[in-house]
Amino acid sequence: MLSENRDPDRPAHPGGFLTSEAGKSDHRRAEHCVDFSVSVVLPAGGTGERTGLQTPKQYCSFLGRPLISYTVQAFERVSWIQSIVVVVAKESMDLMMDVIQRFQHRKVRVVQGGLTRHRSIWNGVLALGGEGEGESAAADRPKVVIIHDAVRPFVEEDFLYKIAMAAKEQGASGAIRPLVSTVIATTAEGYLDHSLERAKYRASEMPQGFTYDVIHQAYQRCTESDFEFGTECLHLALQYCGTNAKLIQGPPTLWKVTYKRDLAAAESMIKDSLSQSACIITGGSAHAVSLAAALQKAVGALNMELEVIPDLMGESSSYLLKEWNFIQVSVDCSCLSEVETLLRDLEAANRALLHPLVVIWVHLSCADEPSISGRKVEPDGIMELASASKLRNILLYGIQLRQSKDTERWERSVLKVAEISSTLIRERSPALVGQLLQA
Amino acid sequence: MLSENRDPDRPAHPGGFLTSEAGKSDHRRAEHCVDFSVSVVLPAGGTGERTGLQTPKQYCSFLGRPLISYTVQAFERVSWIQSIVVVVAKESMDLMMDVIQRFQHRKVRVVQGGLTRHRSIWNGVLALGGEGEGESAAADRPKVVIIHDAVRPFVEEDFLYKIAMAAKEQGASGAIRPLVSTVIATTAEGYLDHSLERAKYRASEMPQGFTYDVIHQAYQRCTESDFEFGTECLHLALQYCGTNAKLIQGPPTLWKVTYKRDLAAAESMIKDSLSQSACIITGGSAHAVSLAAALQKAVGALNMELEVIPDLMGESSSYLLKEWNFIQVSVDCSCLSEVETLLRDLEAANRALLHPLVVIWVHLSCADEPSISGRKVEPDGIMELASASKLRNILLYGIQLRQSKDTERWERSVLKVAEISSTLIRERSPALVGQLLQA
Repeated sequence: MLSENRDPDRPAHPGGFLTSEAGKSDHRRAEHCVDFSVSVVLPAGGTGERTGLQTPKQYCSFLGRPLISYTVQAFERVSWIQSIVVVVAKESMDLMMDVIQRFQHRKVRVVQGGLTRHRSIWNGVLALGGEGEGESAAADRPKVVIIHDAVRPFVEEDFLYKIAMAAKEQGASGAIRPLVSTVIATTAEGYLDHSLERAKYRASEMPQGFTYDVIHQAYQRCTESDFEFGTECLHLALQYCGTNAKLIQGPPTLWKVTYKRDLAAAESMIKDSLSQSACIITGGSAHAVSLAAALQKAVGALNMELEVIPDLMGESSSYLLKEWNFIQVSVDCSCLSEVETLLRDLEAANRALLHPLVVIWVHLSCADEPSISGRKVEPDGIMELASASKLRNILLYGIQLRQSKDTERWERSVLKVAEISSTLIRERSPALVGQLLQA
Repeated sequence: MLSENRDPDRPAHPGGFLTSEAGKSDHRRAEHCVDFSVSVVLPAGGTGERTGLQTPKQYCSFLGRPLISYTVQAFERVSWIQSIVVVVAKESMDLMMDVIQRFQHRKVRVVQGGLTRHRSIWNGVLALGGEGEGESAAADRPKVVIIHDAVRPFVEEDFLYKIAMAAKEQGASGAIRPLVSTVIATTAEGYLDHSLERAKYRASEMPQGFTYDVIHQAYQRCTESDFEFGTECLHLALQYCGTNAKLIQGPPTLWKVTYKRDLAAAESMIKDSLSQSACIITGGSAHAVSLAAALQKAVGALNMELEVIPDLMGESSSYLLKEWNFIQVSVDCSCLSEVETLLRDLEAANRALLHPLVVIWVHLSCADEPSISGRKVEPDGIMELASASKLRNILLYGIQLRQSKDTERWERSVLKVAEISSTLIRERSPALVGQLLQA
């Protein structure tokens, strides 16, 4: 279950958030040679009462996938991380097991949490150490344990590397951020007592790293009161092991999804990461190639990159594995066979497992006489195909436009295709699948 | 310019955020009898470097309107607030004047800021006090000054009332929030020194309130160093006037738009507030009334309320002034005259000044024979109308469906209209205006 072998059916880049250049994370991975064992404890027992929602926020769904799966994925894609222990409330064990199965997570073990955050983390550390499982399991215990929050899904490999290295060298390490607000002390009656000088303090964030020995000793020695009321692992390491953690400033994206507004912010970041580029398939037709070139320019102004390819054969087949968005251009052919082939290829590549894919079928009419029977697209066909694809997490939309000799008119149409495509790709709206839009 | 008289052309409720029940804020306003004068200083000189964007965040646009206009509006709609002084950087004076003119803000004066936050606020306070403008101006100085941030647009009248009352009684008051992260002190070398006990501290937020005398005296007595490096007005009131501010816990919506993710969160909150309800106009036809009733049920499940009215005559004309979203049902009539009338009424009521309005034209075919010429809707008409309306900030979309005797089929169509409408209303996407969607 904890095997590090890559599943060949699994996409090579299951969504490296905030990594805009393709291949960049591979490059980094090569640099980050970690020659000691690192595992992760992910406490996920929170009730999420501050969002004001029924569902604990780690189980809130973003594009059909719970937040915790994004966080697990953020660790899973890091090659030097051995295993991830997710600590969940008893009543959520089944739910979590279901998430792991549905989204084919590897490297993950689920452990039952305690009544407080510290008790849950301690359970996770014990599970990593193989306590109660005999000596052979104990020999597997990691050198470094990274502790993170289930509701901070956007952690990047670069930063995890810094935390792991500092933890190994110093015994403990933690992410910090500058304070956004001044911190003040209040009197018992609710008046200002004093304010802290903002520059001297930092917000303690996650992830934090510890050598196994430090975190194990800290929990073994700490009091019932620490277990009950404490929140800060760094404090325990200082108090019970004399370890002053190395503090490292993290990026703002480390923030904790806490309030309802944070759900919107997280969704927007996920959508951003999925809508940076698209692959346009021309079928080789000269009309389609010229439309693609014009679109390439137009979507550039909308902050999206477009790769133009004739088909998905040969080297181009790699786009199947690295792109979330496809635009298939059909010229004068109202049949959907090209887009059907694309949909089949995407399904075969199991590409829609983690995120909904967007496929836009662009129908370009070039014939002189308008609406020759057989060339006019009937909306029912694409609607049926889209309904079927939606069940497999592929969102299909259609756009039709007419070639025009009037340059101004043509440019307006192209711009409209670009704007509509960019909106469809950004919003990934399930309600609009199968619509045939006019450009 | 500072007159409190309401402009009759101005909508009665220019967007009371987070106030879901219509009329509720009127009710509150009656309760909040403030018998002393209150004015506001809004420092808006920040550069917004933490968002990573070129535009300072107070000028970032949300649905076509800069953030600062939302914040100004939040104060402007409070009847007992006399005047608002916006303090801006010299280079943004023209931009701010333009915002005030475009969105027809009243009660607002623009003052040039200083080099630091405290110097800017001091300039604002001096402007309120009529310093240098003779005794008559000085007599106008407010009893209480509320200081707020330009980038906290979601402040509500209820909370402003609490702040103003506490400031009048105690001399100073301020909003606080629980800390989300533990606060830690760091050593000069970047190691953990100690962590603060989270329960004893609070984050100091905005708004804050002061009697004019306290804030004036605090700034008159404070040092150059305070002006240069200080950030906390409550601290100055304590240090230089011996006033311990009353601290009041505010709602999470008071948060400060700081990072790029906060822009997405703010946009989402604005969209939420605009998409809670819609008004459906049936024209009185029995088919339309029955569709409306079915839609009412279906959008209820999507967390939206629907008011069904036959037309916008008589008492129903009040919907023109209180609703942001309209659905016009036309039965068997492919002409757009009903929706054209609605668009004219909305323009006459100047309803799209502060937010884009959404109008959805639903075309219901009930005739037995499909596509009788003249009944089939041509997409060009609605596209042209939508392009013209978009220039006036009204977003027009079309949906067509066919009455069916097959109950299951009919219910599926109705659900689709509900889903599409709810998506169009929520997203307010300019790229999709004029499209005729199929349900």
